[in-house]
Amino acid sequence: MTAAGGDTQHGIRRRNLARVLRAVAGHGPLSRAAVAARIGLTRAGVAPLVDELLRAGLLVEAGRTATGGRGRPGSELAVSDRGPAGIGAEIGVDHLAVCAVDLRGRVRARVAADAANRHSAPGPVLRQLSALLAEVTAEIAAEGLRPAGLTVAVPGLVARGTTTVVHAPNLGWRAADLAPGLAGATAPGGGGPALPLTVENEANLGALAELRLGGGDGGSAPPPDFVHVSAEAGIGAAVVVDSQLLRGARGFAGELGHVPVYPDGVPCDCGGRGCLEQYAGEPAVLRAGGLTPGQAAAHPGPGARIGLLARRAADGDAAVVRALHEAGAALGVALAGAVNLLDPQAVVLGGALAGLAPWVLPSLEGELALRTAVAGDGLPPGAGRGGGPRVTVSRLGADGPLLGAAHAALQAVLDDPLHSRTPAHSPRN
Amino acid sequence: MTAAGGDTQHGIRRRNLARVLRAVAGHGPLSRAAVAARIGLTRAGVAPLVDELLRAGLLVEAGRTATGGRGRPGSELAVSDRGPAGIGAEIGVDHLAVCAVDLRGRVRARVAADAANRHSAPGPVLRQLSALLAEVTAEIAAEGLRPAGLTVAVPGLVARGTTTVVHAPNLGWRAADLAPGLAGATAPGGGGPALPLTVENEANLGALAELRLGGGDGGSAPPPDFVHVSAEAGIGAAVVVDSQLLRGARGFAGELGHVPVYPDGVPCDCGGRGCLEQYAGEPAVLRAGGLTPGQAAAHPGPGARIGLLARRAADGDAAVVRALHEAGAALGVALAGAVNLLDPQAVVLGGALAGLAPWVLPSLEGELALRTAVAGDGLPPGAGRGGGPRVTVSRLGADGPLLGAAHAALQAVLDDPLHSRTPAHSPRN
Repeated sequence: MTAAGGDTQHGIRRRNLARVLRAVAGHGPLSRAAVAARIGLTRAGVAPLVDELLRAGLLVEAGRTATGGRGRPGSELAVSDRGPAGIGAEIGVDHLAVCAVDLRGRVRARVAADAANRHSAPGPVLRQLSALLAEVTAEIAAEGLRPAGLTVAVPGLVARGTTTVVHAPNLGWRAADLAPGLAGATAPGGGGPALPLTVENEANLGALAELRLGGGDGGSAPPPDFVHVSAEAGIGAAVVVDSQLLRGARGFAGELGHVPVYPDGVPCDCGGRGCLEQYAGEPAVLRAGGLTPGQAAAHPGPGARIGLLARRAADGDAAVVRALHEAGAALGVALAGAVNLLDPQAVVLGGALAGLAPWVLPSLEGELALRTAVAGDGLPPGAGRGGGPRVTVSRLGADGPLLGAAHAALQAVLDDPLHSRTPAHSPRN
Repeated sequence: MTAAGGDTQHGIRRRNLARVLRAVAGHGPLSRAAVAARIGLTRAGVAPLVDELLRAGLLVEAGRTATGGRGRPGSELAVSDRGPAGIGAEIGVDHLAVCAVDLRGRVRARVAADAANRHSAPGPVLRQLSALLAEVTAEIAAEGLRPAGLTVAVPGLVARGTTTVVHAPNLGWRAADLAPGLAGATAPGGGGPALPLTVENEANLGALAELRLGGGDGGSAPPPDFVHVSAEAGIGAAVVVDSQLLRGARGFAGELGHVPVYPDGVPCDCGGRGCLEQYAGEPAVLRAGGLTPGQAAAHPGPGARIGLLARRAADGDAAVVRALHEAGAALGVALAGAVNLLDPQAVVLGGALAGLAPWVLPSLEGELALRTAVAGDGLPPGAGRGGGPRVTVSRLGADGPLLGAAHAALQAVLDDPLHSRTPAHSPRN
């Protein structure tokens, strides 16, 4: 209940450094006076913090201001494009990808490869991923960037605070700790400090990307409370409350795919019956759309089968259109439960679902409105829940988890700028 | 994103005062040295904070310590039993109740009355409640306690941060602001400062009581992450994450009663179909148990109809036993959705449900285990979700909301001890 450590001089200084860095990263270039005004400190209080961030190479002088005079006091500050980079990696059922994002939020390197990861062993997958990581690391090193952390997106449950994939059914992984298999990438032979490694559910990272980069089809900023739904081979969700991921006691929150939709319905691999995944998961939709396993298998690779469904639906294939309508209705029922429980401001469709939105959305929104309209009638404007929350489609689509991973890897720098510097002589606690 | 105000000297002092008061309230009597050790400050740092809380009448000297010498430096500190009191009130469908709790957590006064609040107008109900409030205030004043705040529990949706009941279907209230009707109780004629008023959903307050006083049938401390289900006339739930209530964007989170359980099932008053309330709400269970409206009406008052169901079930009435079994199954399906989404450590059955647990729990736990066992097999101990979270029964039962309301009213004092003192000369910001 107490947080005594947080109010030490050291703790306050660390938070203020983070505030300066985040202000410039989010709103820069900014003059020192503008930084001070933005974070509620005096200019005299901000100056030494800025100096420290300049020395650490996290901020740079961006040149003179429009209104100020020449020289340093009037110059503007920007985050460095040669400092730390967040490395994001994604392990998909049939692909691998790695990217690097700098403090300015720009993608500075990106590689991807097809891979046959379904029902694989972790070892070979992590070796292939390590090779991609080495490629990206070399590429950004040439531009003066150094990795600040690595976050790996996986399609499965990750035990909270660990690097262990508890269960990734589509990969066939159980209780697989990824740290040893990535040691070559995170503990380089040069004797430098180890790279912090985080392993995270892909839906959670998709939501983080949405929070950082998204804002839906209208281009507006994302709300602080939303449910993010994504679908690749399975269906996952992430719950964001007050701009924070809700992780759950064990880290398993967001298992929308196993919310019961038709309790007496189709048996599910999880042991339950009538789970959402049995109506809106990719295999279920392919089957209901009349596509044979052979036709599906002829479309490997990220998003290819989803693209096939979208093309068929656009061509007016009645079975596919009906299958997507039913998937949307099942999603709407499951999300109605989530909305009644969580009262979010928005539901965001991300991942492969974004590409199927034209055929999935109408029935989804219909069910959601029907089942979340408690108290919706006869209320003063703004007071009711009439029609439920806004449903938006992510602009990031299938890129969300990878970008979210890279941004998550950079977050430690933004939260604690100097601790996260990793010069070889600096011990890490 | 920033919290600049929180790190001012004033902010730090306020938080430290709160830490001292909470340490003594939660663990006292304590010596000054023990307080210092517990909150991570030096004894010299703690001494002036203690002096201030003593002057304000929030702490008292509890006498000499066992190990120390005589006199003040060695004496122990306790929270006062004559300082502020939290006033909790409950508006039920057929009863009203008010209680007062002191800083030691003891109930110092309590009154209740039968009331015909179903489909009532707010005015007369609030007049009757105000009379009960005056009774309790007079009673505690005679013991040297003064009201620090009033929290009112209502069976309905409350717009977040307001005193407005957006919709309470069983009362028949819509968009009803309770502040004017309670002005007599919260703005006394003596010219004193107004009493802070909070209006809150009863299920939320039941969960707060659980967090503060509960711990389930085993007597263990409640976990920081749980879903609290309560049932009176309707079914409500509260979601607690990291010991905090999840309120939702509009304050409407926790509407478990309208989670779709059988999507093609019984139409619900909310406009949806197959909502949990249609299978596990009191009217549905009474109907399914073969009890006529006349029999039900012959049992008015808090918990009377639930008591009737429990007695019939205990006597082996097959229709009632079956109805409670079906209600438990429906609760299990709805809670399986909640557990898949939120991954709590426990589900706590509170309110009237606690009294029906023997007949509801088996089918509830069966459905929950079946539908939340993703990744449950073949995992190392502790890593899986095998069987889902613990289901416990609240020891507070139907008392939860009222006690939670009184404790919530006191929370402002614990969070900000000196600001919450309400001498007539102290301006409130």
